[in-house]
Amino acid sequence: MSPGPSPLAPQVREALGRDIIHHRTEEFRNILAEVDEGLKYVFRTQSPVLTFASSGTGAMEAAISNFLSHQDKALVVVGGKFGERWKEICGSFKVKTVCLDIEWGQAPCVEKISEILKKDSQIRAVYTTLCETSTATVYDIKGIAQITKDKDILLVVDAISGLGQDVLETDLWGVDVVVGGCQKGFMLPPGLSFISLNKKAESFLKNSDLPKYYFDINKALKAYHKNDTPFTPAVGLIMALRESLRIIREEGIEARWQYFAKLSEAVRKSLSSLGLKLFSKNPSSSVTAVSLEDLDTQQIVKKMRSMFGISIAGGQSHLKGKIIRIAHMGYINEQDIVMTLSCLEKVLIDLGYKFDKGISLKTFQESFYP
Amino acid sequence: MSPGPSPLAPQVREALGRDIIHHRTEEFRNILAEVDEGLKYVFRTQSPVLTFASSGTGAMEAAISNFLSHQDKALVVVGGKFGERWKEICGSFKVKTVCLDIEWGQAPCVEKISEILKKDSQIRAVYTTLCETSTATVYDIKGIAQITKDKDILLVVDAISGLGQDVLETDLWGVDVVVGGCQKGFMLPPGLSFISLNKKAESFLKNSDLPKYYFDINKALKAYHKNDTPFTPAVGLIMALRESLRIIREEGIEARWQYFAKLSEAVRKSLSSLGLKLFSKNPSSSVTAVSLEDLDTQQIVKKMRSMFGISIAGGQSHLKGKIIRIAHMGYINEQDIVMTLSCLEKVLIDLGYKFDKGISLKTFQESFYP
Repeated sequence: MSPGPSPLAPQVREALGRDIIHHRTEEFRNILAEVDEGLKYVFRTQSPVLTFASSGTGAMEAAISNFLSHQDKALVVVGGKFGERWKEICGSFKVKTVCLDIEWGQAPCVEKISEILKKDSQIRAVYTTLCETSTATVYDIKGIAQITKDKDILLVVDAISGLGQDVLETDLWGVDVVVGGCQKGFMLPPGLSFISLNKKAESFLKNSDLPKYYFDINKALKAYHKNDTPFTPAVGLIMALRESLRIIREEGIEARWQYFAKLSEAVRKSLSSLGLKLFSKNPSSSVTAVSLEDLDTQQIVKKMRSMFGISIAGGQSHLKGKIIRIAHMGYINEQDIVMTLSCLEKVLIDLGYKFDKGISLKTFQESFYP
Repeated sequence: MSPGPSPLAPQVREALGRDIIHHRTEEFRNILAEVDEGLKYVFRTQSPVLTFASSGTGAMEAAISNFLSHQDKALVVVGGKFGERWKEICGSFKVKTVCLDIEWGQAPCVEKISEILKKDSQIRAVYTTLCETSTATVYDIKGIAQITKDKDILLVVDAISGLGQDVLETDLWGVDVVVGGCQKGFMLPPGLSFISLNKKAESFLKNSDLPKYYFDINKALKAYHKNDTPFTPAVGLIMALRESLRIIREEGIEARWQYFAKLSEAVRKSLSSLGLKLFSKNPSSSVTAVSLEDLDTQQIVKKMRSMFGISIAGGQSHLKGKIIRIAHMGYINEQDIVMTLSCLEKVLIDLGYKFDKGISLKTFQESFYP
């Protein structure tokens, strides 16, 4: 129940135990072709979606090292740990950053982004996040895309934790680059990262002078068009990804968006009914964060694990001990949530927290099965 | 039977199908601690061995971007596709290279390396390969290490395909950095890379000015000492790696070296008995390459796959169509080889190649079971 790695789908688990096939074969090229189509479906784009054998951070690095140059300027929205990561990677690659620092738990104001871009014509790209996992906040990507869409400014969105739950219309909204990972909405073990790039983004490739090799998008694109990869792909994970993409396509991405919107709403109401305070001002459909006064939330996380074997997440950085986060993404469903709420109530009681016993489950039932 | 991805051990396969545990837990830290010890055992070093979620090429990039600086000079031994890869990565990171180009199938002359280093005092590192997979050739790493050991020159060895079969005594010989991958001797699906670094190598870290983030060794080392990883690790593969390391430790690395030395000798004799010509002048214990006159070897590779479902490898680059390569690494054993020889004979007959039927199997029996 933590925001990634999230549970495996049974079909995925079965695929992971299969024999590895060689990656330079017709058989594997066919799998890649199916996976590439499936990724386009989930990313809501007709543009290529490349797959790297790496954690999501690898594709984030690729989204900087391939599109920008030394001393280029980028606008980075920093409202949590993953916004900070964009900033850090820019720093490592000597890309200058203008930061829009927002209070953790808030979403960025689109007007503010527009102003910054108007004032500073040197900014070549905007790096932001769909779901800022550390604060359980969804950002208005559609609004930001309206600003960058017809300008020579690249919009790059880290959708690692949000993809599959939070609505993202890559092509329709005009998002240039989307970064994803496999261990959240894709119901896989970690080890694959994804990056989609449209024609505008492709045009940025040729001017970039930052060093890259393993995450070189030019190399990856060339191989992609032959249903191949430049280096040995994570064959086992890709075989499993085919299964998870089949599940998503069968259910339909819009149906999944609706499902997680409904599920997350029920989670928010349930946790609120316990007297816990929603942390995010613009909550995501992928994860919910709540704060508790007078209780070290790390105790809750520990007890959930030791008493029930359930992983929920605490806060990161300065939010450590201040919030708990419960994921609703990928293979997590309403029954997992019911179970989690039941255990959470017991843990809260043990920690001396007062509330009307069973209220969170009652609230969940009323909200989810109206 | 191709030189990676090689078959999975059953224990590995079982572990891959298990539920994913969260990576920021005591349970996973204990797994990492065991895995780190196991890796040290296989790498024959007391120094840290870091694990990245990536293909082997990722750790190769790390071995350049973390130790060198812009315009530094490196000596690269280029005698096959993987020597070329070192050169390419150096190029991408604007590291100057002095190349020792050797004929494919030959091992580098240690004296020659010594001469080059004497002549050019600006060379800061030597990049070479334990087993050059593309030519099935093992290099004299011990000899090269004797030259670099007491100098301020870093010796970096790509042992991705050789590790576990070809003898490598990292600490004893004084090899500073060793790069590995999980899909060969470790009997895993691809997706993990490794890098060991000794104190001398650590001292190179602080002067390096090349950009890195995902493959930043400073970050990885800091996390390593807390049994952690800077970014989400490939949890499933690491759980499976624990199993394969247990297998290797139980058998003993020296026993495995001896086993593959014996197995590879039998393979070489068997293929020679068919009239095929050994391609390498210094053959590896991990893979064997043979050339055939008047036959397009791609036909053999294709027929092995279509008739028997057996993956063997052809040649890469200018060796395409000229050689075939049969691996003996990781979970491949003598019975796999017997089966492969039997099928290979049938394929050769179908392609009109003349030889004494059964001779390769007879030779194998005589050599392997003397």
